[in-house]
Amino acid sequence: MTPIALYLNSQADRRIKKGHLWVFSNEVDVKRSPLKTLQPGDLAIIHAANGAPLGTAFINPNALICGRLLSRHSDVVINKNFFVRAIERALRLRETCFPKPFYRLIYGDSDGFPGLVVDRFGDYLVVQISVAGLDKLQNLVVEALTQVLKPKGIVLRNNHSARELEELPDQVELIGEVPPIFTLEENGVSFEVLATEGQKTGWFYDHRINRQLLMPWVKGKRVLDVFSYVGGWGVQAAVAGASSVVCVDASAAAVEKVYANAARNQVADVVSAIKGKATDVLKQLLADGEKFDVVVLDPPAFIKKRKDQRAGEAAYRHLNELAIRLLGKEGLLVSASCSMPLTNEALTEIVRGAARHHDRNAQLIWTGGQGPDHPVHPAIPETSYLKAQFYRIYAD
Amino acid sequence: MTPIALYLNSQADRRIKKGHLWVFSNEVDVKRSPLKTLQPGDLAIIHAANGAPLGTAFINPNALICGRLLSRHSDVVINKNFFVRAIERALRLRETCFPKPFYRLIYGDSDGFPGLVVDRFGDYLVVQISVAGLDKLQNLVVEALTQVLKPKGIVLRNNHSARELEELPDQVELIGEVPPIFTLEENGVSFEVLATEGQKTGWFYDHRINRQLLMPWVKGKRVLDVFSYVGGWGVQAAVAGASSVVCVDASAAAVEKVYANAARNQVADVVSAIKGKATDVLKQLLADGEKFDVVVLDPPAFIKKRKDQRAGEAAYRHLNELAIRLLGKEGLLVSASCSMPLTNEALTEIVRGAARHHDRNAQLIWTGGQGPDHPVHPAIPETSYLKAQFYRIYAD
Repeated sequence: MTPIALYLNSQADRRIKKGHLWVFSNEVDVKRSPLKTLQPGDLAIIHAANGAPLGTAFINPNALICGRLLSRHSDVVINKNFFVRAIERALRLRETCFPKPFYRLIYGDSDGFPGLVVDRFGDYLVVQISVAGLDKLQNLVVEALTQVLKPKGIVLRNNHSARELEELPDQVELIGEVPPIFTLEENGVSFEVLATEGQKTGWFYDHRINRQLLMPWVKGKRVLDVFSYVGGWGVQAAVAGASSVVCVDASAAAVEKVYANAARNQVADVVSAIKGKATDVLKQLLADGEKFDVVVLDPPAFIKKRKDQRAGEAAYRHLNELAIRLLGKEGLLVSASCSMPLTNEALTEIVRGAARHHDRNAQLIWTGGQGPDHPVHPAIPETSYLKAQFYRIYAD
Repeated sequence: MTPIALYLNSQADRRIKKGHLWVFSNEVDVKRSPLKTLQPGDLAIIHAANGAPLGTAFINPNALICGRLLSRHSDVVINKNFFVRAIERALRLRETCFPKPFYRLIYGDSDGFPGLVVDRFGDYLVVQISVAGLDKLQNLVVEALTQVLKPKGIVLRNNHSARELEELPDQVELIGEVPPIFTLEENGVSFEVLATEGQKTGWFYDHRINRQLLMPWVKGKRVLDVFSYVGGWGVQAAVAGASSVVCVDASAAAVEKVYANAARNQVADVVSAIKGKATDVLKQLLADGEKFDVVVLDPPAFIKKRKDQRAGEAAYRHLNELAIRLLGKEGLLVSASCSMPLTNEALTEIVRGAARHHDRNAQLIWTGGQGPDHPVHPAIPETSYLKAQFYRIYAD
């Protein structure tokens, strides 16, 4: 079978040659290679206007990003072995970094896998597919994962919003044996999460190193973990010796798991959780005269699109001001953001403004990002999203 | 004695109110408060154009930055106790972060100490003063450091280039007992440095966490440490289990200390050092067909001023290309930069280009910055300078 050829407009090959993996629909020379004749999920060879082949891509004529490069080779066969090699390469990175099998195994384009996320919980895998090409080859991906990792069970959580852009239906499927709860270990602390109903894939491995770097700060300290989910920061802080930890989350299921995870690690006596909207709870804590030595703010993405920038920055500012007011003398603020469009500089500016507004000084003592199981693709800024800035806050 | 009053032009108070600490000479209302009547090192109260006091500052009428805020209070007495309080506040930060007394104790403006750097080597301190106001109060600073830390000896290394901007003479002074060699411990590894003749203050504490995060990568691996100085990265890698380490530095004294530090840590059998210009040595290693699993590039600042940007970026690019060519299959590149004007994004762009030029893929797996003993002042971007980007480099 002759592979389909897709020709780009003049100059449109430049970004690809610089390392990027995406083709936008307005970059295709549709006279020469009519996009509309292709089906979502087709494979094609991408060519520059001068005919030079650029690599093999998944095609979706109905999506803004109509092509996603899988390989810079044009003669590669996209079969189970292709996926096995890519999974093994991703696995070598994780096994070098982490002593135990709990990590994001595949992080999309950064691992050469457009539209695929795989999180590993020991013998179990949670898989998210978000592009039509991979959706079509889902069975090959599952076979390849099975060959390399021999998991006891796989959860296909194909019910997330990114699928809409590719006009893919929501679909959740369990393969093999899937228990109701997955357990994992992070920085030596044990956690349990809901296997099929937790947020996103169930756990946020991206903050691992940032949580590790918080540990020296919490011994004997009062810690507030805002947007705690199942207690990732808070329970680790308790294990590291915090005198008390208060977790705050709007989800009853998350709050329940905070208690379960505290108990798992024998720190139930120092951990408590409040169910409620973060800003409401912080205002109540202020009204009650509470003070904390460490406040962690790890909110969901307030800025998903550039149009949310202004309102999102205002929301971060409001939250950081509340946190700063709750800090005692020389407190530590961990201000995180998973909003891709919010730069580190912009977040620093928000905390600077929040601190000055309350006549406090801020020292930015560490700027952390996403862990090595969430590698950044140097040509695709969208693959970089996580910030964790550590500040010491004090009055003169 | 009535303190001197310095009035700013209209609007010139805005940056100060946002948290910045510097007054530029063109921001002073010289009709109202003639700068030229002041002496280098005078203290003054800075006022907004409307008369509102902004704080207490060191003045140097001969410098571009003619005022440096010491305090946002106008009624504060700048005496030994003032310095003692600031040193104690800085010390609390370091003692929280680090189990042993080896760190940058004072990092200038970020610690509320304009023009002061103090590095601690256990019982010994190395002090650098770079502004006239502090130079004048040098004895108070030394007394305050002595009261808080009771050091056995202090080296005043006032012979660096920043002093020229304030028209301060070079001056090196030893106080108390100062041995020829200082020892320190970083990430559990022991080092010795020359007490009065090493680079800068003798050691670069800023990379501590980055060096720690390299450790999982080196077990059984061949490591190349370029611009090694006395072996900070290389000897730590050897202790962490590297099968061989080659250090490269242009200084014979540094190379000698690499061997001494390897011996101190019982890794002399795996560490060697080459004296030579980095690019020359890398080219020779290439010509010899050598390959490494890990290459660390930690060069001096190629871009000190914005005018060096273009030539500096070309130098980083050249160096990173050489390093990438020396890497074996799936190697790790640590690309560091201490050039303040080079952003993280610009460094990523350099490595992306260098990798693509040699048809390699790069995964940015960690972006580290300066450690918590080099806090960033959120209103003063100049206080942020260090980058350490970790890449996995591989061919398809």
